[in-house]
Amino acid sequence: MGKKRVMTPAKDVDLSSIKYEREIVQAPHLTGFVFRLFVRIIEAPVIGPIIMNILKKENKMDEILRHTMIPEEPMFKPEYPPQEMEPGVVVLEEDGRPEDRVEYALKCLPHYDVAESWENSSASFRYWKIRDYAHAYQSRKVTPSMVAERIISIIEDNGRNKPPTPLLISFDAAGVREQAAASTQRFEAGNPLSILDGIFMAIKDDIDCYPHPSKGATTWMHEVRTVKEDAVCVSRLRTCGVIFIGKANMHELGMGTTGNNPNFGTTRNPHAPDRYTGGSSSGPAAIVASGLCSAALGTDGGGSVRIPSSLCGVVGFKTTYGRTSMEGSLCDSGTVEIIGPIASTVEDVLLVYSAMLGASPANRISLKPAPPCLPTLSSNDNSNALGSLRIGKYTPWFNDVHSTEISDKCEEALNLLSKAHGCEMIEIVIPELLEMRTAHVVSIGSECLCSLNPDCEDGRGVNLTYDTRTSLALFRSFTAADYVAAQCIRRRNMYYHLEIFKKVDVIVTPTTGMTAPIIPPSALKSGETDMQTTGWLR
Amino acid sequence: MGKKRVMTPAKDVDLSSIKYEREIVQAPHLTGFVFRLFVRIIEAPVIGPIIMNILKKENKMDEILRHTMIPEEPMFKPEYPPQEMEPGVVVLEEDGRPEDRVEYALKCLPHYDVAESWENSSASFRYWKIRDYAHAYQSRKVTPSMVAERIISIIEDNGRNKPPTPLLISFDAAGVREQAAASTQRFEAGNPLSILDGIFMAIKDDIDCYPHPSKGATTWMHEVRTVKEDAVCVSRLRTCGVIFIGKANMHELGMGTTGNNPNFGTTRNPHAPDRYTGGSSSGPAAIVASGLCSAALGTDGGGSVRIPSSLCGVVGFKTTYGRTSMEGSLCDSGTVEIIGPIASTVEDVLLVYSAMLGASPANRISLKPAPPCLPTLSSNDNSNALGSLRIGKYTPWFNDVHSTEISDKCEEALNLLSKAHGCEMIEIVIPELLEMRTAHVVSIGSECLCSLNPDCEDGRGVNLTYDTRTSLALFRSFTAADYVAAQCIRRRNMYYHLEIFKKVDVIVTPTTGMTAPIIPPSALKSGETDMQTTGWLR
Repeated sequence: MGKKRVMTPAKDVDLSSIKYEREIVQAPHLTGFVFRLFVRIIEAPVIGPIIMNILKKENKMDEILRHTMIPEEPMFKPEYPPQEMEPGVVVLEEDGRPEDRVEYALKCLPHYDVAESWENSSASFRYWKIRDYAHAYQSRKVTPSMVAERIISIIEDNGRNKPPTPLLISFDAAGVREQAAASTQRFEAGNPLSILDGIFMAIKDDIDCYPHPSKGATTWMHEVRTVKEDAVCVSRLRTCGVIFIGKANMHELGMGTTGNNPNFGTTRNPHAPDRYTGGSSSGPAAIVASGLCSAALGTDGGGSVRIPSSLCGVVGFKTTYGRTSMEGSLCDSGTVEIIGPIASTVEDVLLVYSAMLGASPANRISLKPAPPCLPTLSSNDNSNALGSLRIGKYTPWFNDVHSTEISDKCEEALNLLSKAHGCEMIEIVIPELLEMRTAHVVSIGSECLCSLNPDCEDGRGVNLTYDTRTSLALFRSFTAADYVAAQCIRRRNMYYHLEIFKKVDVIVTPTTGMTAPIIPPSALKSGETDMQTTGWLR
Repeated sequence: MGKKRVMTPAKDVDLSSIKYEREIVQAPHLTGFVFRLFVRIIEAPVIGPIIMNILKKENKMDEILRHTMIPEEPMFKPEYPPQEMEPGVVVLEEDGRPEDRVEYALKCLPHYDVAESWENSSASFRYWKIRDYAHAYQSRKVTPSMVAERIISIIEDNGRNKPPTPLLISFDAAGVREQAAASTQRFEAGNPLSILDGIFMAIKDDIDCYPHPSKGATTWMHEVRTVKEDAVCVSRLRTCGVIFIGKANMHELGMGTTGNNPNFGTTRNPHAPDRYTGGSSSGPAAIVASGLCSAALGTDGGGSVRIPSSLCGVVGFKTTYGRTSMEGSLCDSGTVEIIGPIASTVEDVLLVYSAMLGASPANRISLKPAPPCLPTLSSNDNSNALGSLRIGKYTPWFNDVHSTEISDKCEEALNLLSKAHGCEMIEIVIPELLEMRTAHVVSIGSECLCSLNPDCEDGRGVNLTYDTRTSLALFRSFTAADYVAAQCIRRRNMYYHLEIFKKVDVIVTPTTGMTAPIIPPSALKSGETDMQTTGWLR
């Protein structure tokens, strides 16, 4: 006796008594032969589960999931009471035409200044944003076909680079030329489909983009799962005239945060080729960061859009769960993943997001999402949209980073927001962060394992990378009761967050606790496991 | 390779090709020493999980949960599109006063014929129904205090019976007298609270009824969980004037369908004391069947109200999930359990149900239940309410019973319905029944284990009955991915049922596939496991 721990009901927890606890993941850093040996051992019967149990005990997983009486009932998917409409936003029609939503989104953006974009720039490099392309196409400076040729030649050159920087897993120059020609024709006829017409995008390899296969960066997924049409999100973008260059590289099956990929090669960070891009949406972030495309789609269940966007210096957006349809993606049965846009600016993210959004029919029934809306940032509107924002900051968490350079820089950005717009900063407390992380890994891991089980049990598991196999061995050790306990924790976390959002409009943190880590050369061939380092990325 | 099985999406399954498959549970029947030894072995490390895996393989659990590609995403709780209001029903106000709902329900019932109830009866025994008591109290034939004395003396005598028939786990004569006196006074003052005033009810031992402890028929639950107030359902009934006689016996923690209980003694079937009552709500059903109370509350996650009601020849009602609040019950975090009434007639079930119903705040957000409604059965209404019913019957399933006597009797009842009211019989097909049963046991078992884990890990697991320990050993073997797969199956089952309910209003089956089994004397001391027999009860 004495193992049992009883949690106070979330609504009775005294937040003023919460002490921030810095948590370091307890796990070995392994590469090469030792790593491969380790994976064989943890996959073995009897000894494997014993090692997993030791690792889980070290990280307090059993204590949280099996020894704790959690008074809340499970919350399997987000549940929230109907929300009031925020002021200063434009509501978008989920069932409407994507082109119409993009049109509305365009009206929310600040005025597009041609002179500033085209004449006054002295920088040696600048990102072409969506409205830059649109202006160039409309004013006949350039055609989508001309851009296509540039992109094709870069990608073809890129294949010959040393070290190789595999941005795409599937690429078809003819297909790109064809889409570009159709877009060019629409501009010539004066009938572009939307502001997104002729915009080049890359799609992460776990989202269907016909006729490309969806491998999820594995060597075999396309053999057991055929792509017959676009994912719902992709099809909405296609309606708007977007040109898809192919399937972007990623961490195998999204199960990692570095972007390491022994199957197709590890994508290199465009800002420093010896460093990781972060993952799992490594290719999409690198493609946007390198300026090759204005935007890309990634998937995010535990940071997979936000982490690589942060490490590559671009903008990634994890939407509210259920806001985007997962139909036609490899992670279509989870309770945390979304498909989200990556672009070089917030404005471009808003444009892509407005086109692709819309909950699935099942989620409309179970989640009853509030209608999607965008902030009015247009200069016509004289209100100071940012000025009224109440910004929540949990300072000890904000400062819990690998190097203070990161928290200092983020602090500077907050001061700028305060000074320029008068945003109010409010100190908040988010309790039970370790419990939240534990519940998260159990949820995403179990849901992922469930969809992989039939193929793994059928013998394909050994054809996954060692990194993925390490994760799967951990996920296999979770019991059904652990999963239910994780959902009880989810209800607590949801309660805490809903309470916080009564006091603030946004919660700010550094996106990642460290900058892009260096790629160990020994990790290129068979990957690595380094949860202590990657812990900073989450 | 070759293990993998791929399911057709539910919406594409050709029902005409479905062949009914009779499934027999593969498990040993054990009692006494061999049973106790078996439990020790399945609880042992290494060998225990190996035996469990063999048992699960025999019953195709791994094939269904791990080798099958299920195309549907998980449905953790029932999700259904908004429903149209049925004709011929009265809508009840979930947020209204329970007394008002009972008043509405009363108006739905057929006319109460005093002469028929009190004068023309020649039977040696008849059940006093709720309106019989109300009539007797109002016409001063009898007072609640007089009834209380009769009940108290029967219960006290009952404790001295051979064999003992432990109907109640917690009983307090003084408390019953006090409630009865208050009710008697209300009748004297001409102010009864509702038609339920002075009605005696028993509450299953897993539902809080202050000041009784809630043991869930264990020897220790009350030591770790204190009852401070009535469960929400109980408190609603109390508002209506119901008198609670105590906490009714049950299968330990609801984990069994016989009612066998080595801790407090096994409740005997009032119609045949050598036979089981069925479970898990053994006490509530026996108390109603013996005529001691007009009604009782049970809990039902997998038949626990329906099975004992059937084996004891009374009426049990499993409501739609979420229709009744589980707050203040031991099974308050599941996705299948409800609290439901047991009574001797459908009319009494409706009266009790109308008082106790009302979803919890969390379920109102996540389930968005349609408003509750009752059928209009009053004779004032000239419409033939039953006549318009379309009755769905899956004949091979209907006839898959332990003895054809059961299906023949049920068939007779259906013919009566057809002849007397003109109900239409429609043949239906319900596919994937084995998958449904598998998904069910994984869901209820894992949710139950989750709430028991902290105490079991804390050393109290060995103080549970061998029967419960057998179930828990099975539940511990379910992985988190199994749980998620079970929820994917739930979505398929929900789809099939929603489709069936487009064509029919009700689905009929025998409630249990066998009549009450004989209690093996060897099973009284340490219980038994006999899944082949109890399989017929589900």
